[in-house]
Amino acid sequence: MRRVGFLTSGGDCQALNAAMRGVVKCLANSGEEFEFYGFLNGYMGLIAGNFRILAAKEFSGILTRGGTILGSSRMPFKQIREPDEEGRDKVESMKQTYHKLQLDCLVVLGGNGSQKTANLLRKEGLNIVSLPKTIDNDLWGTEMTFGFQSAVDIATNVIDCIHTTADSHGRVFIIEIMGHKAGWLALNAGMAGGADIILLPEIPYDIKKVVAKIEERAKKGSRFTIIAVAEGALSKEEADMKKKDLEAKRKKEGYTSASYEVAQEIEKKTGMEVRVTVPGHMQRGGAPDAYDRVFASRLGAEAGQLILKEKYGYMVAYQNREIVKMPLDEIAGKLKTIPKDASIIKEAKMLGVSFGD
Amino acid sequence: MRRVGFLTSGGDCQALNAAMRGVVKCLANSGEEFEFYGFLNGYMGLIAGNFRILAAKEFSGILTRGGTILGSSRMPFKQIREPDEEGRDKVESMKQTYHKLQLDCLVVLGGNGSQKTANLLRKEGLNIVSLPKTIDNDLWGTEMTFGFQSAVDIATNVIDCIHTTADSHGRVFIIEIMGHKAGWLALNAGMAGGADIILLPEIPYDIKKVVAKIEERAKKGSRFTIIAVAEGALSKEEADMKKKDLEAKRKKEGYTSASYEVAQEIEKKTGMEVRVTVPGHMQRGGAPDAYDRVFASRLGAEAGQLILKEKYGYMVAYQNREIVKMPLDEIAGKLKTIPKDASIIKEAKMLGVSFGD
Amino acid sequence: MRRVGFLTSGGDCQALNAAMRGVVKCLANSGEEFEFYGFLNGYMGLIAGNFRILAAKEFSGILTRGGTILGSSRMPFKQIREPDEEGRDKVESMKQTYHKLQLDCLVVLGGNGSQKTANLLRKEGLNIVSLPKTIDNDLWGTEMTFGFQSAVDIATNVIDCIHTTADSHGRVFIIEIMGHKAGWLALNAGMAGGADIILLPEIPYDIKKVVAKIEERAKKGSRFTIIAVAEGALSKEEADMKKKDLEAKRKKEGYTSASYEVAQEIEKKTGMEVRVTVPGHMQRGGAPDAYDRVFASRLGAEAGQLILKEKYGYMVAYQNREIVKMPLDEIAGKLKTIPKDASIIKEAKMLGVSFGD
Amino acid sequence: MRRVGFLTSGGDCQALNAAMRGVVKCLANSGEEFEFYGFLNGYMGLIAGNFRILAAKEFSGILTRGGTILGSSRMPFKQIREPDEEGRDKVESMKQTYHKLQLDCLVVLGGNGSQKTANLLRKEGLNIVSLPKTIDNDLWGTEMTFGFQSAVDIATNVIDCIHTTADSHGRVFIIEIMGHKAGWLALNAGMAGGADIILLPEIPYDIKKVVAKIEERAKKGSRFTIIAVAEGALSKEEADMKKKDLEAKRKKEGYTSASYEVAQEIEKKTGMEVRVTVPGHMQRGGAPDAYDRVFASRLGAEAGQLILKEKYGYMVAYQNREIVKMPLDEIAGKLKTIPKDASIIKEAKMLGVSFGD
Repeated sequence: MRRVGFLTSGGDCQALNAAMRGVVKCLANSGEEFEFYGFLNGYMGLIAGNFRILAAKEFSGILTRGGTILGSSRMPFKQIREPDEEGRDKVESMKQTYHKLQLDCLVVLGGNGSQKTANLLRKEGLNIVSLPKTIDNDLWGTEMTFGFQSAVDIATNVIDCIHTTADSHGRVFIIEIMGHKAGWLALNAGMAGGADIILLPEIPYDIKKVVAKIEERAKKGSRFTIIAVAEGALSKEEADMKKKDLEAKRKKEGYTSASYEVAQEIEKKTGMEVRVTVPGHMQRGGAPDAYDRVFASRLGAEAGQLILKEKYGYMVAYQNREIVKMPLDEIAGKLKTIPKDASIIKEAKMLGVSFGD
Repeated sequence: MRRVGFLTSGGDCQALNAAMRGVVKCLANSGEEFEFYGFLNGYMGLIAGNFRILAAKEFSGILTRGGTILGSSRMPFKQIREPDEEGRDKVESMKQTYHKLQLDCLVVLGGNGSQKTANLLRKEGLNIVSLPKTIDNDLWGTEMTFGFQSAVDIATNVIDCIHTTADSHGRVFIIEIMGHKAGWLALNAGMAGGADIILLPEIPYDIKKVVAKIEERAKKGSRFTIIAVAEGALSKEEADMKKKDLEAKRKKEGYTSASYEVAQEIEKKTGMEVRVTVPGHMQRGGAPDAYDRVFASRLGAEAGQLILKEKYGYMVAYQNREIVKMPLDEIAGKLKTIPKDASIIKEAKMLGVSFGD
Repeated sequence: MRRVGFLTSGGDCQALNAAMRGVVKCLANSGEEFEFYGFLNGYMGLIAGNFRILAAKEFSGILTRGGTILGSSRMPFKQIREPDEEGRDKVESMKQTYHKLQLDCLVVLGGNGSQKTANLLRKEGLNIVSLPKTIDNDLWGTEMTFGFQSAVDIATNVIDCIHTTADSHGRVFIIEIMGHKAGWLALNAGMAGGADIILLPEIPYDIKKVVAKIEERAKKGSRFTIIAVAEGALSKEEADMKKKDLEAKRKKEGYTSASYEVAQEIEKKTGMEVRVTVPGHMQRGGAPDAYDRVFASRLGAEAGQLILKEKYGYMVAYQNREIVKMPLDEIAGKLKTIPKDASIIKEAKMLGVSFGD
Repeated sequence: MRRVGFLTSGGDCQALNAAMRGVVKCLANSGEEFEFYGFLNGYMGLIAGNFRILAAKEFSGILTRGGTILGSSRMPFKQIREPDEEGRDKVESMKQTYHKLQLDCLVVLGGNGSQKTANLLRKEGLNIVSLPKTIDNDLWGTEMTFGFQSAVDIATNVIDCIHTTADSHGRVFIIEIMGHKAGWLALNAGMAGGADIILLPEIPYDIKKVVAKIEERAKKGSRFTIIAVAEGALSKEEADMKKKDLEAKRKKEGYTSASYEVAQEIEKKTGMEVRVTVPGHMQRGGAPDAYDRVFASRLGAEAGQLILKEKYGYMVAYQNREIVKMPLDEIAGKLKTIPKDASIIKEAKMLGVSFGD
């Protein structure tokens, strides 16, 4: 009998349960015998030896359920990866838990930070298979992550709802969409929601161009303008600043993100009323959509195959329409942002979308 | 041929178009001849004589469309109802537009302020039929307003999305739900979303009781607590303040609503992480749900009947499962808040919901 | 400690779990001690003594879950209520199970047939509290049943989807909507979906009038017509037949419902292409909507109150905006159909809807 | 000024309007001048010279609207492509309309048949740009078609709704999903909905294996089985028949598709109750989802680019994450079915899905 541990790490997202169900179904259908250990609240559970044994049937019926049946947590990534003494202790605790339970491997579902920690554990000799989880779609080595398309649906629905009000009242509406370093979510939801302006971390904006677009629309008779702003959007000036200076500037001005800054600038320069909507955490919540259910199930099944074949040290990934395996060491810690010359950016511009650049 | 004017006033909401379609279909099917005038952007259009003639066929296919095809605006209610000289001028402008176009009546779709203005115009001799529009469900004289149930759906969906994250991460989540003076929306969405605590304008809260509920849940093993907070919720101390003093206090503390205040108090007193989500304007946006489409259509049809019978000075309303007519003079300016002894409050308490009282 | 049994009977619907959660939360919060017995698959479980003891925490998180955690079944109502010897044995088995488990009362969630059986058990001396479950909204003594509004949402969505195709292709589309004896669901979904013609069990149709309406629309330039047909709709001729003769006629013609009959007649008489869509069981599936969650929770809480006060022999019901208790003996076996002079019918006609009468 | 014609052909689907909006926005933003001609009801409008001139602003706000603002029709493909004399006349009529209006090019949005006709017109000297429209995703030369993902969402939702009833009542449920020749839709919706058995045109089934799977599930304690059946699914015996013989066999047995045949066989062999749900046309209706809106917009923009560059005779297509152009002559008339060794089939099997093979 082989023992497989599971943990879900970082901000939760849609289809975490679907992905785990995929792994377990694949293993349970293989004819071999397995025992499943679920660590509670991410790496915290692995550190503290906090787990429960999971029956295969617990994975029935969770294909459609949002969140994670294991709980998640964000800590203590950084400490572990750039370890001080306490961090080093934590790594040792994780290894101890793993070995004490005589695990054959550990399945990690996580985003960027979690993949880095997974790779660190791999270097420490643990057998790791990981899955690409994040609504940001910013993981290197995979064209797609699960959670992303479901989050696009939700953010798009927010823009749809705002659209009717914007149209009725003739205002400028800013919707702040998740994504600190990568703008995939804001870009796709913005295009799906018919946003007129989309501001992304990858394309620093010039507020004058943003205002010009609004005024151009007003001149053509449009009563309203919809702006999708990624959390991590920043102006050209801000893009040239050091991180520390940017934080200091924003703190001084009382903004935590570009949305309110842009709002105030537009009000100042156009006299138009501007409203900001921040859907926030709801973007990572709720049931996975059909796309993510299929996608996460497929990833889970292929992760199960890796375990059956004892091929460890990989993240399952999506490339050129196939599920492939990517060495953790190659992909961990790398970010996939929107290339400035991406076709989708050009196409959005053909459609009349302004990126403020 | 009779001439009927239409205007939609105040914050937009779902089913405004469905309601207008109802009126127009009823009149167009009556055999009599009508001409329809749509004033743009609420009373502003009536003041400025800004209108367009609407063909009956423009109302086809708008049953499901959110927002309002006429546009809306919030101004200038107060000035009109407590008129200074400029306000008086505006009333005269409205009367002039009405008479110049030789309207037989004016159909007003609006909330509290709009109904007051409608009643003022009635006193000035205009023939008025009004419809109860608001997501707040706070209009006196009607058990239900259109927009309300659709807004409940949206706010409930927000709580549903937050639920999975709350469960996965084990935090306290506050969702701020629209409703300044009446808590119907927060109450219903809170109950539908399974909120553990609901804070309403009608029931001032004691922060100690809110904290006690969270701690009681933690003691019983619950990882998370969901709190639905109406925009107009306030603490017992705040409830005793004069409006001016409350505003001053909040301004000083940097809060515009109770949500962030409650969040900070909970963090201080429990050490738990608290997150606030503010869905904001999306609650009044998007397509009307099935309930609102039927309800608004029925109200519209009965408003059409009043016009056919030349019975003016009424708001169509819902009482005891029938659409009835309520004299504008009786209902305008009165607010329908949740009675403290309402059955639904008692039932919510039976279900374990805390109102912090 | 008191022992409370639960069973869900008849076709499943949305909010069954929400309603049971309401009862259990109310009792669990009362301070008294309770033990909960769940009979599996409706009355079948009571007959066979097939149950499991339910922990209060099993009811957490099921507010939003469709179906029933207890399972349901349709049999063997008739046999029990008009008992032959075998039926008599089943009643005795139910009584034995009840007494053997020393139940204080039995909570029945069911529609018309189930309420009749509940009343029969009441006459046999069992303590019964029942809740009005059905997507048909046809239970006497209550203005509303849970499941109804969620089913309206689904059926309306089906019509919405068909609308775009109808509009694009210019055809007649028939959507067959659940409801054998009462047309509430078809009426409300039809109005919400903007159906042009609605055929109901309560209003026998004249196919010539149906065809006339389609032709009138075509003459006015409409490319398409949408017809909502209740399962139990019938023509004027069929309405005059004895049940046996109607069944024989339909069998001979190869129709199980009016939808295909109407379709064929229209094709014959107008030459237009007609398509029939039968959403079927999906109307009773999926998660309850916000309305049903609140409504079923309230009903559940008040059912809990009856149990706390040991007031048995009632169905909790909705009347004039309050949850009330109705003696089972008064309501069991009576059907609530749409009165021919119902306001909503008149209003639908004002909106231009044809009922084919 | 250049003149561009548009037509939407074949069964309608989601995102047709979004795709046309994409083309028009791209051209309108190019700085050049264009005039847009919309042919009504597909090729029928081109044959009859039935069109209207479309203002660019008519394309505003249609990103989210289902169906097609131009109307569609299925005829008269076959006659045109394998022309008898009447067919030849129709081709001439189309050419005449095109030349008479002095069109620079014709944009065709359509599925397989429509692409063939488009290619025929290309051979006749017309300038054609086409877009891949179909919920079946069966067009050769493109990895994806618009409409597909939205249809997956709808079909998945149907399965979700059925799931709760299946679970509550313990039955076998068959959901018939669109797709005559290709099973992409049934496969993806089946996997997203957690179907236990999926029957596809590409993988003829053995009814004994289908029954075995159901019995295996029952043995393991599952109350229910969900089967997704593509319209074009067939048994191994049927797969060996000539088309004519298959049609004769089915006609004789009274089945138009495999669903009812499979249902009857299962009932006969297992004694379990089987229910069939046929969502039908609703799968191609309603608003496009976020994925399709982005995808169709991108395709539209790139089609616009082809027109700007006067590159004609292509279908825009999706390959390896980029929008590319495929020569109509290479792709027209070829079908993209699911390869038997497709990874997704293997993965579905790892997850325990049976294809009855």
